[in-house]
Amino acid sequence: MSTSNSEGLIDRLTMQLAKIPGVGKKSASRMAYFFLEGDPAYCQSLAQNLNILHSTIKRCPECGAWTETATCPICSDDTRDRSLICVVERPQDVHIIEESREFRGLFHVLGGLIAPLDGIGPEKLSIGKLVMRLHKGAKEVIIALNPTIEGDTTALYLQKVLSEEPGLEGLTISRLASGLPVGGDLEYTDRLTLSRSFRGRVSF
Amino acid sequence: MSTSNSEGLIDRLTMQLAKIPGVGKKSASRMAYFFLEGDPAYCQSLAQNLNILHSTIKRCPECGAWTETATCPICSDDTRDRSLICVVERPQDVHIIEESREFRGLFHVLGGLIAPLDGIGPEKLSIGKLVMRLHKGAKEVIIALNPTIEGDTTALYLQKVLSEEPGLEGLTISRLASGLPVGGDLEYTDRLTLSRSFRGRVSF
Repeated sequence: MSTSNSEGLIDRLTMQLAKIPGVGKKSASRMAYFFLEGDPAYCQSLAQNLNILHSTIKRCPECGAWTETATCPICSDDTRDRSLICVVERPQDVHIIEESREFRGLFHVLGGLIAPLDGIGPEKLSIGKLVMRLHKGAKEVIIALNPTIEGDTTALYLQKVLSEEPGLEGLTISRLASGLPVGGDLEYTDRLTLSRSFRGRVSF
Repeated sequence: MSTSNSEGLIDRLTMQLAKIPGVGKKSASRMAYFFLEGDPAYCQSLAQNLNILHSTIKRCPECGAWTETATCPICSDDTRDRSLICVVERPQDVHIIEESREFRGLFHVLGGLIAPLDGIGPEKLSIGKLVMRLHKGAKEVIIALNPTIEGDTTALYLQKVLSEEPGLEGLTISRLASGLPVGGDLEYTDRLTLSRSFRGRVSF
């Protein structure tokens, strides 16, 4: 590709960076030169963090969130409300919800959404484990899946499974409200979101 | 920032990635999770390349381009035309021009452009070294700086210095043509580019 050896490593680095979603060949090359021209210490500490990433961070055996400890700090935090379980799709969703400081219960990572076209059925999701955890005295399960076709399908499936599960009769099954985003504009809101925000309207 | 340890490393990684120009906090976080969910081997080889980057790649003492060898492969390539020297701003410009396979002479990296407002004067650029190299029997120097205010200023300055340099009387000083980009559209071409392409028009 280049007549210059000096590009050997830069090219390898560029090709690796171009694998990052949303990063094209040009931006990857710009990144590579940014690392090369930048502070070596920064570059090495970034390398160090990338190097230990997979050995340091595992999935929590309880909820499935990312953790640096055996059980994740949320599952092992006694101050959290264990009767509340919030179901999310991906481990990073836990982080997103934690940052909102809105929820003080426990989490459960499904590990995906039902998507027949992609060959992802309920058996591929961590639903059995969820049911098992709910039997440990859960009062409410909050389904926090994206309001997409797959998210809605999965939410409906969970609702059906959990409502029919013997021993979970008292369990409240709720879902995050869907409607106009704060700061949103009626004019730029799609029909589906608008109709949802009507059906889900709340009285003052 | 987060209640979960598992975010400790992820947060550090995200903050480091957010330092990359054009990468915001959100994309940095997405990148970090991409690395975490991706193949560990990929992540470690990327780390390895970042780690050896600064120790492997140096500037060529002759032309100033990036090189993994003592002198860069271009400077040490006897098949290249040593009477032709192409002046560029940054080391990576060498790579860009090499890929065009248009130029078979040698390069010289100035290391910047004259920018009084940023306190960058001619003395900060590798001009003395350029003059020295030109004295070694150069026939033509091609100034390949960006057609920007700083680029033009620097080009004019070089033209003045080199034309007045004793012993370089026979030297041809040329500049990359500036005009309509190939595939460009008159309608979307700015006035300056258009006037340049008129002044620089070529006869069939």
